[in-house]
Amino acid sequence: MDVSRRTALAGMAAATAFASDSSQPLLAQDASALRQAPGYYRYRVGDALVTAVTDGANSFPLPERFVANASREDVASALVADFRDGATLTVPFTPIVIETAGRRIVVDTGNGEAAFQASKGAVGQFQTNLQAAGFDRAAIDMVIISHFHGDHVNGLLTADGQPAFPKAEIFVPDAEWTYWMDDGAMSRAPAGRLQDVFRNTRRVFDALGRKVTRYAWDREVAPGLTAIGTPGHTPGHTSLLLDSSGSNLFVQSDVTNIPVLFARKPSWHVMYDQDPAAAEATRRKVYDRVSSERLLLQGFHYPFPAVGHVEKVADGYREVLAPWNPVLR
Amino acid sequence: MDVSRRTALAGMAAATAFASDSSQPLLAQDASALRQAPGYYRYRVGDALVTAVTDGANSFPLPERFVANASREDVASALVADFRDGATLTVPFTPIVIETAGRRIVVDTGNGEAAFQASKGAVGQFQTNLQAAGFDRAAIDMVIISHFHGDHVNGLLTADGQPAFPKAEIFVPDAEWTYWMDDGAMSRAPAGRLQDVFRNTRRVFDALGRKVTRYAWDREVAPGLTAIGTPGHTPGHTSLLLDSSGSNLFVQSDVTNIPVLFARKPSWHVMYDQDPAAAEATRRKVYDRVSSERLLLQGFHYPFPAVGHVEKVADGYREVLAPWNPVLR
Repeated sequence: MDVSRRTALAGMAAATAFASDSSQPLLAQDASALRQAPGYYRYRVGDALVTAVTDGANSFPLPERFVANASREDVASALVADFRDGATLTVPFTPIVIETAGRRIVVDTGNGEAAFQASKGAVGQFQTNLQAAGFDRAAIDMVIISHFHGDHVNGLLTADGQPAFPKAEIFVPDAEWTYWMDDGAMSRAPAGRLQDVFRNTRRVFDALGRKVTRYAWDREVAPGLTAIGTPGHTPGHTSLLLDSSGSNLFVQSDVTNIPVLFARKPSWHVMYDQDPAAAEATRRKVYDRVSSERLLLQGFHYPFPAVGHVEKVADGYREVLAPWNPVLR
Repeated sequence: MDVSRRTALAGMAAATAFASDSSQPLLAQDASALRQAPGYYRYRVGDALVTAVTDGANSFPLPERFVANASREDVASALVADFRDGATLTVPFTPIVIETAGRRIVVDTGNGEAAFQASKGAVGQFQTNLQAAGFDRAAIDMVIISHFHGDHVNGLLTADGQPAFPKAEIFVPDAEWTYWMDDGAMSRAPAGRLQDVFRNTRRVFDALGRKVTRYAWDREVAPGLTAIGTPGHTPGHTSLLLDSSGSNLFVQSDVTNIPVLFARKPSWHVMYDQDPAAAEATRRKVYDRVSSERLLLQGFHYPFPAVGHVEKVADGYREVLAPWNPVLR
């Protein structure tokens, strides 16, 4: 280093002592400003417009058996290998809006506004983000439910138990309705989680006067939007295939829970699977198709905005999230 | 199927003909509503708060030599393998704000507000998104520039050529300033892109009265924020390493351009590299370190929010973007 350069460096800030400037409070010290951006993301599928709208995410200590057939240690290792916290599990929830063929269609509804307070804002964000995205809940024409777990149906109701989408026709899988509304099946179900789902199903749909439209597999629910039976996770679990002007989107719902675990290791069974073997068979069938046909996929428990592709790898599948496009054309 | 089920199905909407309802215009038909959410994303690094703020993304036909040492066909294949359009390249730009040690620090500034109109909103979004994130441009204390390419420095000026951060001290790499402000080096530079960078550097910094603070490599620019020389892309190209209460973030700037090409294939040289061999040596050194130390990394040309990790794979590196967290704790 020559003398002139050394002199220049001596005057540089890097060489000065740092005084702490606390004259202006940092945003970090202002809890009210500590928010993420409104959680929605738009993309096109042919002539359709899809808006992914986050309901938030739940973080909780990794349970002993989040994966029913793997040890807590193996699950923690898989999380850490993907640069996540091995002690804490984070599960996001992403309903979507599809605008196609003259209809505004919500697919699944999140944990419901009542969950917002209980979770201190972690979940139950769907309606807030939906509004931020420019949607009036009264202008939603259809709500399509994939299956009857609470994180998919509870958002059908407002915090005070009123219909959250007052003018929408509510579509439910025929097989799901048949199973969960069967009082005999309910009476035979073991106490605990399964009974809770039966009870919650009645709570939600009774509040709607059981006014729903049942839809069948392998038929269009709306023009270009076909219901595909993907049972196992629940008896009537359903995915959707959107076809708009030859472009496609596979809306998987819960064919996998978080992909870092259940796409990478398709033989792992999430604790919420009602028939784990059937769910795995469905998962392999769907992911073989989605990967070989290179279908765009929307995954309810994928990281927001929860859209991407799936590639087949040696011992399973790997999700490839679509790069965020800050420009909508 | 029994008769009662068949009767039920007959009443289902899936079996009805669809009438198009155009009484309410779709958002898709209302161009003014066709916006993405405000483009910012917050996360913590120790006691520091980082906000990634998108400046937008440029999409353009894949040039013949976007990778100086690979054919257009090979580059297109790499894009298609990652489920992207092989004919169109999309390059995003993500400046950040670091709030640490009593300071609000902007790192790099994007293409500048003047680019917003010219690009029809594709780029030049930084100030708008910064404001959406709750930042007053007059409350920014420091701006740290990584290198002098236009997508990093043009945002130092408003659309009408005034200082975009009126109260901020502007920090520039000493080596970068020394090179680009050298009239002799400018006179020896070939016409074309290199001359343009020399001219643009003068345009921007002359508008600021050349009032900058030069910072040195291997020194702190602010408390806990160390400048790391990563030359090659430009002679004074600089990365930053944030250390806050033992948590780290490596702010790489342009050690790679889009990772799907240049992390996966570190021997590929982006057309903007001034000294491609030096840039590759820097890239391998940085990525060996970042992957082995499992450092969180912020990449200016990574997909928004442009934060994640890097793992070493057989013939290069693979980026693992951090899952979007819709909850800030």
